[in-house]
Amino acid sequence: MQFGFAFLEAGSVRAMNTVNILWKNLADFFIGTIVFWAVGFAFAFGDLPQESSYTNANRFIGLKYFFDFANPTEPDRSGFAFWIFMLSMAVNAATIVSGSVAERSQISAYIIYTTLITGFIFPVIVHWSWSETGWLRSPKISNFYRHDYLQNGTFFYNQNEPVRFIDFAGSGVVHITGGLAGLIGTWIMGPRHGRFGEENKGMFFGHSVPLINLGFCFLLIGFLCFNGGSELAIVGAGEHGTIVAKCFMNTIIAGSAGGVVALTVNYGSTRMRRGYADISLYYLMNGALAGMVAVAAGSNNLEQGWALFIGSFGALFMMFCKNILERLEIDDPLTASPIHLGGGLVGILLTPVFKKDGLIELDYIRRFPSRNSSDFQCDYFEWKVLGWNVVGMLAIVAWTSALCSVVFCCLKKLKMLRIPASAEKYGLDRLKHGEEAYPLDGYFG
Amino acid sequence: MQFGFAFLEAGSVRAMNTVNILWKNLADFFIGTIVFWAVGFAFAFGDLPQESSYTNANRFIGLKYFFDFANPTEPDRSGFAFWIFMLSMAVNAATIVSGSVAERSQISAYIIYTTLITGFIFPVIVHWSWSETGWLRSPKISNFYRHDYLQNGTFFYNQNEPVRFIDFAGSGVVHITGGLAGLIGTWIMGPRHGRFGEENKGMFFGHSVPLINLGFCFLLIGFLCFNGGSELAIVGAGEHGTIVAKCFMNTIIAGSAGGVVALTVNYGSTRMRRGYADISLYYLMNGALAGMVAVAAGSNNLEQGWALFIGSFGALFMMFCKNILERLEIDDPLTASPIHLGGGLVGILLTPVFKKDGLIELDYIRRFPSRNSSDFQCDYFEWKVLGWNVVGMLAIVAWTSALCSVVFCCLKKLKMLRIPASAEKYGLDRLKHGEEAYPLDGYFG
Amino acid sequence: MQFGFAFLEAGSVRAMNTVNILWKNLADFFIGTIVFWAVGFAFAFGDLPQESSYTNANRFIGLKYFFDFANPTEPDRSGFAFWIFMLSMAVNAATIVSGSVAERSQISAYIIYTTLITGFIFPVIVHWSWSETGWLRSPKISNFYRHDYLQNGTFFYNQNEPVRFIDFAGSGVVHITGGLAGLIGTWIMGPRHGRFGEENKGMFFGHSVPLINLGFCFLLIGFLCFNGGSELAIVGAGEHGTIVAKCFMNTIIAGSAGGVVALTVNYGSTRMRRGYADISLYYLMNGALAGMVAVAAGSNNLEQGWALFIGSFGALFMMFCKNILERLEIDDPLTASPIHLGGGLVGILLTPVFKKDGLIELDYIRRFPSRNSSDFQCDYFEWKVLGWNVVGMLAIVAWTSALCSVVFCCLKKLKMLRIPASAEKYGLDRLKHGEEAYPLDGYFG
Repeated sequence: MQFGFAFLEAGSVRAMNTVNILWKNLADFFIGTIVFWAVGFAFAFGDLPQESSYTNANRFIGLKYFFDFANPTEPDRSGFAFWIFMLSMAVNAATIVSGSVAERSQISAYIIYTTLITGFIFPVIVHWSWSETGWLRSPKISNFYRHDYLQNGTFFYNQNEPVRFIDFAGSGVVHITGGLAGLIGTWIMGPRHGRFGEENKGMFFGHSVPLINLGFCFLLIGFLCFNGGSELAIVGAGEHGTIVAKCFMNTIIAGSAGGVVALTVNYGSTRMRRGYADISLYYLMNGALAGMVAVAAGSNNLEQGWALFIGSFGALFMMFCKNILERLEIDDPLTASPIHLGGGLVGILLTPVFKKDGLIELDYIRRFPSRNSSDFQCDYFEWKVLGWNVVGMLAIVAWTSALCSVVFCCLKKLKMLRIPASAEKYGLDRLKHGEEAYPLDGYFG
Repeated sequence: MQFGFAFLEAGSVRAMNTVNILWKNLADFFIGTIVFWAVGFAFAFGDLPQESSYTNANRFIGLKYFFDFANPTEPDRSGFAFWIFMLSMAVNAATIVSGSVAERSQISAYIIYTTLITGFIFPVIVHWSWSETGWLRSPKISNFYRHDYLQNGTFFYNQNEPVRFIDFAGSGVVHITGGLAGLIGTWIMGPRHGRFGEENKGMFFGHSVPLINLGFCFLLIGFLCFNGGSELAIVGAGEHGTIVAKCFMNTIIAGSAGGVVALTVNYGSTRMRRGYADISLYYLMNGALAGMVAVAAGSNNLEQGWALFIGSFGALFMMFCKNILERLEIDDPLTASPIHLGGGLVGILLTPVFKKDGLIELDYIRRFPSRNSSDFQCDYFEWKVLGWNVVGMLAIVAWTSALCSVVFCCLKKLKMLRIPASAEKYGLDRLKHGEEAYPLDGYFG
Repeated sequence: MQFGFAFLEAGSVRAMNTVNILWKNLADFFIGTIVFWAVGFAFAFGDLPQESSYTNANRFIGLKYFFDFANPTEPDRSGFAFWIFMLSMAVNAATIVSGSVAERSQISAYIIYTTLITGFIFPVIVHWSWSETGWLRSPKISNFYRHDYLQNGTFFYNQNEPVRFIDFAGSGVVHITGGLAGLIGTWIMGPRHGRFGEENKGMFFGHSVPLINLGFCFLLIGFLCFNGGSELAIVGAGEHGTIVAKCFMNTIIAGSAGGVVALTVNYGSTRMRRGYADISLYYLMNGALAGMVAVAAGSNNLEQGWALFIGSFGALFMMFCKNILERLEIDDPLTASPIHLGGGLVGILLTPVFKKDGLIELDYIRRFPSRNSSDFQCDYFEWKVLGWNVVGMLAIVAWTSALCSVVFCCLKKLKMLRIPASAEKYGLDRLKHGEEAYPLDGYFG
């Protein structure tokens, strides 16, 4: 997935900043690995006592296992594989930012906030949401629990399923966090020079569509691994394998729907506005990305039809967000925050509505109980789940925006955030890296 | 695999059509996903009654499970994974066509025939060949069955193995279908303007060999997944894992042989014709592709030596087909139909000859029975298998060519098939997509 | 992994040699496959009698199973998968050389030494090191064996673990062999014309950093597969899965550390030397590669902290080797021998020191026995292991350098080694392959 971002971004910037963006994507992977090994994993999962007594657990942050590998503290999760998976999530959340602030951020600033996101901001959210003792995952409100019901047909539902924050593969934890951090970063940093001036229209093209497409391909594969890999025990029993394949199917369908919808809407709007239409590869790809972001939260328990719907809606909302950004003159070279923040919000808010045992299904059963078993009892469980997802979303947004604002404002005050205008004009590759992406001597030397 | 085609084709067209070809490869994946989910899978596998009574099954087409996921109707096949695998097969068959008609087909026409191939033409063939109730897979001619024989040595063969259409990983089902559809499409569409005029020699270069090579790499990986993944239960028992690895090995060996043979033949022929030789990367790659197509049908039960032979022969036949196309002035920019149709024919016809329990092995045993156990009885089983593969091949060819001819002729009559000559000269990227692959502003902006 | 080398090298040479280097990378894969199937695997593993009597086994070279698939002679290793894994190792060792001699070697010479390395030089080393009967793997010095010791804590160590050559994933077997062969090749061949002349400074740029980065990404994935895949039974029991994930984790951490260290050192040295610093993508990538090479030997049983150390040291040693090469005016266009030979030496020599039950751990226990169980006895086992790794390293170096010197010197004598100076200036693509990487007609045709 990391490689997907690298090439997507490399193709989307101007040639003179290509080495810079490739460097940033590789460096945040390397730095993130070391930071996450040193402290990040500990903050995220270092709380559960071995004796599994939940009562004294720290529900806000973990504080054990620094500089340690992933202790197999949780059953059915083999330590190392789990660590690697969480690392890739952390690096992703950090690297989304690199797209939003491309072509103008200082390298030292980049290293600082990458370290903070991978090592602290993101792991705390992970602890809340995915650690067995996190406050979002295991809220202590006992009457929130769901009453059991049984169908006399073929399906048995889990009984006493607790209210939890529903985010299977990171629509909120990863994508809202990353997208929001990027949004705040680009907002505080300001647009690239001349980006919104009238005379410079169309000056900020990426330099290579095939590179963008290559990045998209890697990202698509990465999404399959993410949304599927969240079912962590792929080698395990047959049941796990089935869920992984279901996640794949939902991801593919949601991405396809998102791509087709964004393409069609852009086709229609350009046609209405200008008389002739664009059949845009750009919207085909970004719509698909937004759709896959949106479906991540529920890829394991959505029906395919609803996955298609959520993917489509994620793509629409992404386009809406992109429009707003354009109007506010916020410059996001990679459309990263509309895709990840927009798609992520859709995923977090719609999944509790459409998922199995979600609002639509249970509400229908409650209102027409005659059609079902009389065993069904439910104290508005499905509304509580939806409400709890809203709470979780607000918590993530508040935490991320607060910390990122502080970080980026401090960097700005220290004049470390942004490169000088002359450097921006001349390109970072020759100036900072001493390496060009396509040295002329390599062609005609 | 889809991504392999995308980059192979992107590198092989001129730069001004790069966005167009990437768009087409992505769009047919997205559209194909939705269509295959809606109707394609139902046509292919939606027939088997749950109670497994084969007698009333529809042997021509399936008609259940529309807009549904893959019901685990067949034992040992987990539904979702099977669906995804079949989807990738369907999309592949459709996308092969995009290579043959590159640089000149209308986008609306492309969407129409992609939908038809993915949603109807291909699934019906899959039903015939791979569904338990298809007429090619389970012919009702009872005396076609094979008598059992036993060896008193180390090997035990399956007893009473029925005569079936032998196509393990789609030499016929996928590659003949796709290659033939492409051939018919390019034939009806006509060559690119100026392609066969004398003054334009050498005008139609692809624009980037590294992109082509990247596509080839993805395709090679895709072939391994295809030919190996056809053994659908990779997570399953140890025996499956062994067969998957055997498929990998056969695929690698057949591809290597095909590449080396095509290279050598081209080396020799250019040397003889012109005095100096070309050491062609193009033939090295395309020969390998043809070899892997040819070995797909029997990758699970060929000895490695025969895999090498079939791969080599597939490459030779591909070169022969390419020559014929050139003489007939049929313009296939990607050499897609020689590779897929040519290689596929070789695979379908040679696999029954060389495979385990195939013509060579059983015929030898029959003629020299003294060397083997006297338990062997075989009513010319191996000839019947070969004959049945010929029947299957003819059925696929007839079905595909009939339907594709109708589709492409209708589109031609409606003047929807081909872009105007001016658009062909100017390139599709700026005209239709409003996006350039390598915008100059991205380099010098 | 093969594809990684292909693109890394393609991006690192000048555009006029791009087709050539892609061709070489593909051809040595194809030729290597056929050669390894024909003879290589037999030399490597074709010795073990079925009845498992080790006494008469040939401890220098295997001589059975020519033109055969991988007989499942060794328990827990499924034959075909093992064959494919070993093939990819063999091809890798050969392809490292193509980087060192890029832009100036004859194609016929390239085919000859690729065949020799894949078919003979490398397989013999594999037999020594990884076959159960090889002399490095199973030395017959009985008192070398380790006395057992038990801890009364949580961990049980293997008892009577023999002294073996420690090279889990090929730091020595693959990387020293390949790097040394490349070094000898480029030494005998001499530098590219003008490479070390003063007036040509900076003339030998690679032509595309994105291609290099793409190659690096493939290589990184390849390293994960290599270092992890060496635990051959990934589908097997849960214990294997854990070790695979541990190898992944160690590889990622060592690579990250190597990349960051090389970057930092280069940053400091350029700053000290010239006053302003380079933030080099080149060193970030090559340092990571060297780190992953170094950690390969012990990726299965190093603690993460030591993996980080070994990766860093591998990167440092790579930079040291590169400096020496520069001074000796040996021209290695891809820095292949510093990375693979340098990193490999570090891996072979440091792994016995830092690994579990290695020098540091056991020596500490011996000197302070009171802190541990009194059951511990060890006749300087850990020193013997270190010594045996030195022996193995010397054996590999001696064997490879002897044979490679003979091969390259013979080819030089026959004037087959190097292309003429005019061809070097004009580029191999048009001259030998008749195909250009970026034909102008593809852009403006």
